[in-house]
Amino acid sequence: MPQEIRFNAFEMACVSHQSPGLWRHLDDQSFRYKSLQYWIELAQTLERGLFDGIFLADVLGLYDVYGGGPDAALRHAIQVPVNDPLLLVPAMAAFTQNLGFGVTVNLSYEPLYPFARRMSTLDHLTEGRIGWNIVTGYLDSAARANGKTKQLAHDDRYALAEDYLQAIRKLWEESWDDDAVKADKSGVYADPAKVHAVHHHASGIELSGIHLSEPSPQRTPVLYQAGTSPAGRRFAARNAECIFISGPSKQVLKGRVTALREDQRLYSTSGKPFLIYALATIVTGETEQEAEAKYQDYKRYVDAEASLALMSGWTGVDFSTLDPASTVQHVENDAGRSALENITRADLSRSWTVSEVAQHLSIGGIGPVFKGSPQQVCDQLEEWQAATGIDGFNIAFAVRPETFKSVVKYIVPELQRRGRYRTTYPAGTLREKLFGCARLPVPHTLDSRKAS
Amino acid sequence: MPQEIRFNAFEMACVSHQSPGLWRHLDDQSFRYKSLQYWIELAQTLERGLFDGIFLADVLGLYDVYGGGPDAALRHAIQVPVNDPLLLVPAMAAFTQNLGFGVTVNLSYEPLYPFARRMSTLDHLTEGRIGWNIVTGYLDSAARANGKTKQLAHDDRYALAEDYLQAIRKLWEESWDDDAVKADKSGVYADPAKVHAVHHHASGIELSGIHLSEPSPQRTPVLYQAGTSPAGRRFAARNAECIFISGPSKQVLKGRVTALREDQRLYSTSGKPFLIYALATIVTGETEQEAEAKYQDYKRYVDAEASLALMSGWTGVDFSTLDPASTVQHVENDAGRSALENITRADLSRSWTVSEVAQHLSIGGIGPVFKGSPQQVCDQLEEWQAATGIDGFNIAFAVRPETFKSVVKYIVPELQRRGRYRTTYPAGTLREKLFGCARLPVPHTLDSRKAS
Repeated sequence: MPQEIRFNAFEMACVSHQSPGLWRHLDDQSFRYKSLQYWIELAQTLERGLFDGIFLADVLGLYDVYGGGPDAALRHAIQVPVNDPLLLVPAMAAFTQNLGFGVTVNLSYEPLYPFARRMSTLDHLTEGRIGWNIVTGYLDSAARANGKTKQLAHDDRYALAEDYLQAIRKLWEESWDDDAVKADKSGVYADPAKVHAVHHHASGIELSGIHLSEPSPQRTPVLYQAGTSPAGRRFAARNAECIFISGPSKQVLKGRVTALREDQRLYSTSGKPFLIYALATIVTGETEQEAEAKYQDYKRYVDAEASLALMSGWTGVDFSTLDPASTVQHVENDAGRSALENITRADLSRSWTVSEVAQHLSIGGIGPVFKGSPQQVCDQLEEWQAATGIDGFNIAFAVRPETFKSVVKYIVPELQRRGRYRTTYPAGTLREKLFGCARLPVPHTLDSRKAS
Repeated sequence: MPQEIRFNAFEMACVSHQSPGLWRHLDDQSFRYKSLQYWIELAQTLERGLFDGIFLADVLGLYDVYGGGPDAALRHAIQVPVNDPLLLVPAMAAFTQNLGFGVTVNLSYEPLYPFARRMSTLDHLTEGRIGWNIVTGYLDSAARANGKTKQLAHDDRYALAEDYLQAIRKLWEESWDDDAVKADKSGVYADPAKVHAVHHHASGIELSGIHLSEPSPQRTPVLYQAGTSPAGRRFAARNAECIFISGPSKQVLKGRVTALREDQRLYSTSGKPFLIYALATIVTGETEQEAEAKYQDYKRYVDAEASLALMSGWTGVDFSTLDPASTVQHVENDAGRSALENITRADLSRSWTVSEVAQHLSIGGIGPVFKGSPQQVCDQLEEWQAATGIDGFNIAFAVRPETFKSVVKYIVPELQRRGRYRTTYPAGTLREKLFGCARLPVPHTLDSRKAS
C-alpha cells in the first residue's frame, strides 16, 4: 500500500493567524475565536476528517516591530488579541474521541512544577490525546511583558529547553511507578513506597518534590517541535516525536527533511523516527473553476499593512521603513534578509519586491497553496509528499472554518479513494495512534546528562 | 420576602477533599476525578439545583507534616494526587448556561502576565461565569517544589497579593477601552488608540505591556477569598466580592460575619457588600431515618490516620507524635492549638481528645453537618442563616456525587416551597447574577496606591 498522507489542522486562539486581512471575508468566522462553540464545531469537523490532530499556535507577546509599535497588529488583529490555547482543549475533548491536541506552550514563562501538572491534567481529561509543541519564544515584547528586559539569546533558550525538558520528564516519567496507584476501596489509594520525589537543579530550575498528578495515559505528552535553526533542529532531533516545518517549494522542504532525518540519526535520544508535517493551505471546491473563484475572491482581502506587520514580527525588520517596491536583497538585516530569501526560494529565477513577498505569504503563511479540484489538489499533495519525504501536512486556513470543512468534504474522500488516507482511527492514545507505542521511549543519553 | 439562601458546591480535582476515608464508600465516585464526564455530570446536577457556582479548591503541594512525610497523604489520597482545577471549567461550561465557576489559584506560583490571559480566556469561554479564589498558599512543600526554600511569611504573602491584584486589575480593566474592539469587517479589528500598555513595578512584579486578551464579559473575574487571619480578613474586606468562611457553631460564625462586615466598612475599596458563604455538609434523604442511616454508614468509613494527616497539614502539628487520647490543650504549638480550639468551639463545655477532633471533622471538614429529613435540614439552614447573617452555604460533600444529588433532589425543592430559594437563574454574567452589576466597582483607594 502506498504511504498514507496525514493531516493536522493549524489553528490559533486569535482572529488573524497566518492569512492577514482574510478575517474580513464574509464567510470567515474568525471573530468567533472567543466562543467554545467555534472550537467544538471545528474539533468535530476535524475528527470527521480523521485528522491526526489540531495544532494550536501561541504567542505571549505582540507583533510590535512594524512601525515600532503594536498599532498595525491591533488594527488587523495580527495574532492579537490572543487567548490561552490550553483552555480550548477540555471542551473539544468532551465532544470528540480520537482527535489529538498539540498545544504550543512557551516554557520560558511557565514555572515547571505547575505546568507539569497542567499537562498531566489535560492528558487525563483527554484520555491520552495531548501533545506539547515546545517553544522558547521569539518576541522581545513577550520578554518585556513578563518582566525581563529581553529574551535569552537564541542558543541559550535551547539550552534552557533541554534542562527544562529533562526536569519535567522526571516528574512525568519517574515520580510515580506504574503500579503506584491501587485505588483499592478495601485498602489504600496509592502505595507511598512507589511514589518518589524527583530533583533537578540546573539552568535556574530548582525542583524538589513528587509530581502532583498520578500517571496519565501517556505520562509525557506527545512532543512536537518546529525549530529550523541549527540549535532548534538539534533539539528537535534529540527530543521531538512530531515536527512541523514550512517552506515555499519542494526543493526547500526536501532539504529540510533530509537535514532533520540526518540530525535525528546523529542526535536522537530514542531512535524512534519522528513524523514530519509541512505547512500547506488548500483552496478547493467541486470543480477547478469553483476553487479558482474562491482563491481570487480570497486574494481581494489580502492587506499589505497586515502582511507586513506579520512579516516584521517574524523577521525583526521594520518594513514600514522600506519602500514596498524595493527588492528583498536591499533589506539591511541578516536575519530579515535570510527570512525573506527563505520565502522567495519558491522562485529563484526572478527578484522579489517587499510587497510581492507580503502578497505571497498572505494566504496561509510560508507554505504552498494547493488550489483546484479535489483531483488536482490530491495530485499536488501526493507529488509534494513523494518529492520531499514528509509524512503529512499541517493545514493552515485561508478562511475559517471553510478551509477545514472543504478539506474534509472534498480532499479526504478523494485521498481515501486513492488509498492514501486512512478510513478509520487507530485505537489508543495519541502516541499509540501515531506510533503504535504507548510510552515515550527512554532516552539513551539521559543517564549521562542527569543533573544532581 | 424572607432572605434567600444561596448554595455553592465545594469541590476539588482530587480523590479525598475534606471527608478523609469516605472515598472508599461503595457509592462514592471520587476515583472519577480524572474524567471529564464526572465534572460535566456534576455541573449539570448543580445547575439543575440553581447553585450559584462550583468552588474548586486547590493545593500545589503535599500534606507532608504528618509523620514528617507524604506517606499517609498518599495512602489515603488526602488532596494528592491533585489535578489542575482551571482545566475542568471549559468542559463544564460547554454543558451549562448559568453555573458559576470559582477557581482557586495560588498567585505565589503564577506569573502574572500569562495568568491574566488565562482568566480572561476562561471569562470569554464561559461567557462571563468565571471567579477567582485568591490564595497565597499555606504549604511549605509547595514552596519547596517550586524552587523556594520556604514560603513567604504570612503577612508578606498578603502584601504581595495586594500588589499582584493591583497589577493584574490594570491588565483586566485599564488596558483595553470598552470601545477598543470594532471587529468591523469593512474596517479595523481594534482601534490602537484605545489599547494601552500598563505598567507595574512593585513587590518583584515587573509588568510592562498591553493585555493579550480583548475585554471579556466581566473583565475582572468575580473575586473570592477565604482568609480568616487579620491580614487575610483585611485583604478580603478590601478586595473580595464573595467570602467563604468555616466554623463549627453559629456563635463562631456569627463572630466572623460581624468582624468581616466591620472590616468591610473600614477597608472596602468599593463599598459594595460582599456575599458570605459558610461551609456545611448535608446528609439527607426521604426521611429522618434514611438520613440517619446514611450518616451512620458514612461514619464507618472515617479513617483516623487520614483525618490526622489532613489536620496536620492544616495546623502544622505532626499528630503522629501525639497520643490520640491526649486532649487538645496539650498540643504544644500555638498555631496548631488555636486551629484545634477553633474546631472544638462547637462545644466548649467539655474537653476534646485528638482522636475526637479527628472524628469530628471527618465528614466535610470544619463545618456543621446538617442531617435529617428535608424539613429538618431546611430548618437548620434557616436557623443558621438567621443566627449568623451569612448569605448562603458552601456545601462540602461526604460522598460524591451523592451529597450534591440529594441536596438538589430534596433540599432545593423544600427551600423553594418555603420561599427561601430562587426558582430560576437571574440573567447575565456571574457578577450580574450575584450583584446585579456588570463590572467590578472602581476601588476608591486605588489611585493613591498606584505604583509607578
